[in-house]
Amino acid sequence: MDKQSGFSHLGDAGEARMVDVSGKSASSRVAAAEAWVNVGPEIAKKLRETGGVAKGNVIETARLAAVMAAKRTGELIPMCHPLTLDSVDVTGELAGDRVRIQVSVSCEGKTGVEMEAMTAASVGALTVYDMVKSMGKGVEIGPVRLLSKSGGKSGTWQREDKHDAAG
Amino acid sequence: MDKQSGFSHLGDAGEARMVDVSGKSASSRVAAAEAWVNVGPEIAKKLRETGGVAKGNVIETARLAAVMAAKRTGELIPMCHPLTLDSVDVTGELAGDRVRIQVSVSCEGKTGVEMEAMTAASVGALTVYDMVKSMGKGVEIGPVRLLSKSGGKSGTWQREDKHDAAG
Amino acid sequence: MDKQSGFSHLGDAGEARMVDVSGKSASSRVAAAEAWVNVGPEIAKKLRETGGVAKGNVIETARLAAVMAAKRTGELIPMCHPLTLDSVDVTGELAGDRVRIQVSVSCEGKTGVEMEAMTAASVGALTVYDMVKSMGKGVEIGPVRLLSKSGGKSGTWQREDKHDAAG
Amino acid sequence: MDKQSGFSHLGDAGEARMVDVSGKSASSRVAAAEAWVNVGPEIAKKLRETGGVAKGNVIETARLAAVMAAKRTGELIPMCHPLTLDSVDVTGELAGDRVRIQVSVSCEGKTGVEMEAMTAASVGALTVYDMVKSMGKGVEIGPVRLLSKSGGKSGTWQREDKHDAAG
Amino acid sequence: MDKQSGFSHLGDAGEARMVDVSGKSASSRVAAAEAWVNVGPEIAKKLRETGGVAKGNVIETARLAAVMAAKRTGELIPMCHPLTLDSVDVTGELAGDRVRIQVSVSCEGKTGVEMEAMTAASVGALTVYDMVKSMGKGVEIGPVRLLSKSGGKSGTWQREDKHDAAG
Amino acid sequence: MDKQSGFSHLGDAGEARMVDVSGKSASSRVAAAEAWVNVGPEIAKKLRETGGVAKGNVIETARLAAVMAAKRTGELIPMCHPLTLDSVDVTGELAGDRVRIQVSVSCEGKTGVEMEAMTAASVGALTVYDMVKSMGKGVEIGPVRLLSKSGGKSGTWQREDKHDAAG
Repeated sequence: MDKQSGFSHLGDAGEARMVDVSGKSASSRVAAAEAWVNVGPEIAKKLRETGGVAKGNVIETARLAAVMAAKRTGELIPMCHPLTLDSVDVTGELAGDRVRIQVSVSCEGKTGVEMEAMTAASVGALTVYDMVKSMGKGVEIGPVRLLSKSGGKSGTWQREDKHDAAG
Repeated sequence: MDKQSGFSHLGDAGEARMVDVSGKSASSRVAAAEAWVNVGPEIAKKLRETGGVAKGNVIETARLAAVMAAKRTGELIPMCHPLTLDSVDVTGELAGDRVRIQVSVSCEGKTGVEMEAMTAASVGALTVYDMVKSMGKGVEIGPVRLLSKSGGKSGTWQREDKHDAAG
Repeated sequence: MDKQSGFSHLGDAGEARMVDVSGKSASSRVAAAEAWVNVGPEIAKKLRETGGVAKGNVIETARLAAVMAAKRTGELIPMCHPLTLDSVDVTGELAGDRVRIQVSVSCEGKTGVEMEAMTAASVGALTVYDMVKSMGKGVEIGPVRLLSKSGGKSGTWQREDKHDAAG
Repeated sequence: MDKQSGFSHLGDAGEARMVDVSGKSASSRVAAAEAWVNVGPEIAKKLRETGGVAKGNVIETARLAAVMAAKRTGELIPMCHPLTLDSVDVTGELAGDRVRIQVSVSCEGKTGVEMEAMTAASVGALTVYDMVKSMGKGVEIGPVRLLSKSGGKSGTWQREDKHDAAG
Repeated sequence: MDKQSGFSHLGDAGEARMVDVSGKSASSRVAAAEAWVNVGPEIAKKLRETGGVAKGNVIETARLAAVMAAKRTGELIPMCHPLTLDSVDVTGELAGDRVRIQVSVSCEGKTGVEMEAMTAASVGALTVYDMVKSMGKGVEIGPVRLLSKSGGKSGTWQREDKHDAAG
Repeated sequence: MDKQSGFSHLGDAGEARMVDVSGKSASSRVAAAEAWVNVGPEIAKKLRETGGVAKGNVIETARLAAVMAAKRTGELIPMCHPLTLDSVDVTGELAGDRVRIQVSVSCEGKTGVEMEAMTAASVGALTVYDMVKSMGKGVEIGPVRLLSKSGGKSGTWQREDKHDAAG
C-alpha cells in the first residue's frame, strides 16, 4: 500500500496496482449493493400495465444480466482479483417511479466481493435502462452503492443511511 | 415492437427481445453519457495531495476501464447488438468532492451507441470506486445518465438539465 | 478451399483454417436453428405446475442465454468469423415432454449466420438442462439442427424433415 | 431451493437463481458427457479419405474448442458458478457416420462440473458441424448427454443406457 | 492526434485515447506479422521425433490459439478498435531450433489490422511456449514483428530486413 | 504425460491436452517474466520529451493491459488452467531505446503461473507497440521470457542470463 496516500490500489510511486493478497487466508465474504433506476412516472405506469408482464420481463432480464456480470467483474475492473463465487442473489422491484436492483454476493476467498456486488447492481440497472430507453432517454441511474459487507480483516461494515434512497 | 406497451425491447407477448434492425440502414451515431462518483471530502483531499499523482492514476485507470468496457457492452447487456465502434472518448475530472467520468462514443451502424456510452461511464465510475474504497466504503455512484445522442430515426436528443449534476 | 476434400474449413494441406471472405460482398443473411431438450414426463409435469411460473422462468432464462451466446459465437467456434448481428430472435416452448428452443439470426455480412443460430440454440438447451438437472441428470439434448438459411452465394436452404423432431 | 417445485435453480417465488453453495465444503468432482454429430455417409467418407488428415484436423479443432469452452461455462450458462478446473480431457472419434466428442472434467470445488462437461461436449460438436457444414447443412447434433458424475452430496450417478447412442 | 508528440494514441494533453476513425471510409486492409520461439536444440529434436506427431500437435494448437486471439484483439489491447475480420491465416513451422508463427489478417474497415496480426502471432508463440515449457523454461519468444501492411491512408509498408530473423 | 516425448501437454498418442492436476495439492506459486520492446532512438526520444507525459501514459496503459491480460490467460492459451490469482505486479520502464515490461504473478494453486506472467508481459509489450506504431511500424517485440518461478513440484527456477537482454 501507498503508506502516504492510504489508497491500497496505489503503489509507493502512486501507480495503480492490484493488491497482493498472497499473505491472506481465505475466509467467508459477503457484500450487498443496490442500484436505483429512476424511470419516471410514465414508464413506471407502463411497466405496471399489461398485468405486470412488461415489469416482470424487464426486471427478470436485469436480474439475469446482473448475475452474469458479477461473474465477470475481474474482467471489467482493472485491479480486481478474479474470484470464484459461492452465490449471487439478485432481486428487482418497481418502487414508485424507480426500479431497485439489489445484489448480494458471497465467496470464500482472500478478498472481498464488494466490487462484484457493485458491478452486478450497475449492470442490472444498465439493463433496465436499455429495456426502457425507447420510451425515455432521460432515465437516470443512481445511487449505486454498497449496503453492507462482512468478512476479511476490515470486518463488518453496514451503511447507516440505508433506507434513504428509497425515501 | 410491442405496440401496446411501447417498449421496443418487449415482443408481442411482452417477452424480452433484441430489436430487429435488419431493415435499417447504417448511419453515423454519437452518444454521450456521464457518471458521477461522490467520494466525499476526505478522499477528494487525498486525491489532490501528493502533487496529483493519486488523482491522476485513479482517473487514468478509470478512463482505460471505461474505454475497454465500451467495447464489451454487447456481452454485458443482454439485448444490445454487438457493434464495431469508431471512437470512444473518455475524460475524468475531480470536481469538488466528486469524480466525473464523461464518455462520448461514435459508430457507423444500424443502432445507436447510447448503451456503449452508459456502460463505459458506469464501469469508469465503478473503477473509481474500486480504487478509493479502501478509504471509504460509503462512496456512492450516481447519477449515471445520457447527455445526448444523435443519428438514427429518432434523431438528436439532448439532456436539458445537463449541468445540474455538477451544481 | 481444399479442392480435393471439399471442406471449406480445411486448407490445401488439410489444415484447419478460417475461410477468407475478403472477396465477398456483404448481403442479408438469415439462419434458423432449433435444439430440443428431452426432459421426460416427471420434469415436464413439474414445469407445468405452479401456474407455469417454473416453466416460464426456465424458458426465459434459456432464451436470454441463447441471445447472449449468439453474440459470442466467434469466440467459441475457432474458425468462425466475428460478426455484427442485426437480430437474434429466440422462442422456447414446452411441447409434451420436451423443451424446444428455436433461434433465428440475421445479419448483413460476408458470411452466413448458421453457426450463430446453432450456437444460440445449443446454449439455450444447455441452460434448460442446467435449470432442471437437480431433478434428473439423465435429461438429453438433441437434435440440435439447422432449419433454414438464406443469403450468400449458396442461396436458400430449407430442412425437409423439419417437423419430424417434434413428432 | 424452491421447496415446492424441487428445482434448485428456482427460488421461493419461482425466479431463476444461482444455487448458494457457501455452506458446502470443497470436494473432488468429476463429470463426463458426450455429444454426437451425425455427419452422414458422404461426409464420413470424405473425413476418412486423404489418409485421415481431414478427419484428424476436424477432430483436433473440435477437441481444442471443447477444452476452451469448458473453461468459459460460467460465462455462458447464467446460473453456473465460475470454477477453477483441475482437468478437461476431450476425445473425438469418427464411429460409422457419426463423430463422437467425449469430455471428462474434474475440479475440487463446492459444485459439480456437469455443466462444464456438457458445455464442452456441445461446443466440440458445434465445431465439428462448422468444419463440415460446407458439405451438408443437414448435419445434426445429438444426443448431448451426461455419462456420469461423482462427488458432492448427491454422490455418484452413472447413465444406464450408456452405449445406446453408439448403437 | 497529439500534434506535438506525433503519437496518434495520445491526446492533446498526452493522455491515452482511441483514435477517432469516424471520418474515415472503410477499405481493404491486410497485415502480416511473425513471432519466433527459440525452443533450443533439445526440444526441437523432441518435436521432430515420433514421426512429427508432437511437432504437428504443438504447432496446430498454436495455430488455433492464434486464430482465436486475433478475434479478441480489441478486448486485450486497450486502445484497439473492435473489428470484424475477413480472414485470419496462420502458419507454423519448425525451422532449425526455432518455431515460427506467421499470421496474415485482412478486413474491410476503417482501421488497419496490424494489432490483430501482432496479437495473434504473440498468442501463437505463447502457446508454443506453454506446450514445451515442461521441457525447458528458458525458451524465449522473439522477435514478434510486423512484416507488412497495406490499405488505409498510410498505404503499404513492407519490412526490409524481413528474412533476418530466420537467418 | 506422454512418457516418450516428455511433453506434459501431449497425451499418449501425442495429442494436445490439459495437464491433470487433480492429484496435486495447492501451494504458493510465483513467476516473473519480462518483455522488451525495441522502439528505436527516434520514438524513445519522443517518449522522453514533453516532460515524460507521453512515456508515462504509454507505459501506464501497457501496465494496465498487462494486469488485465494476466487474468484472462486461461481464455487465450488453450491448455492453461483457469486460476484465481493473488497478485499481478507490473512495472514498465524506458531503458535506452527499449521499453521493458516486467511482470510478477502469484497464486495459491495446483499449477504454476508462468503462463500468466508470460502472457501479461506479452500483452503489455503489444500495447506499447500499439501506442507507438503510428511513429514506426518496424518496432520489434522481444525477447519475451521467464525470469524465475517458484513453488510446485519442480521447485525454483531462475534464469541465469537474466541481465543480458538489457545489456
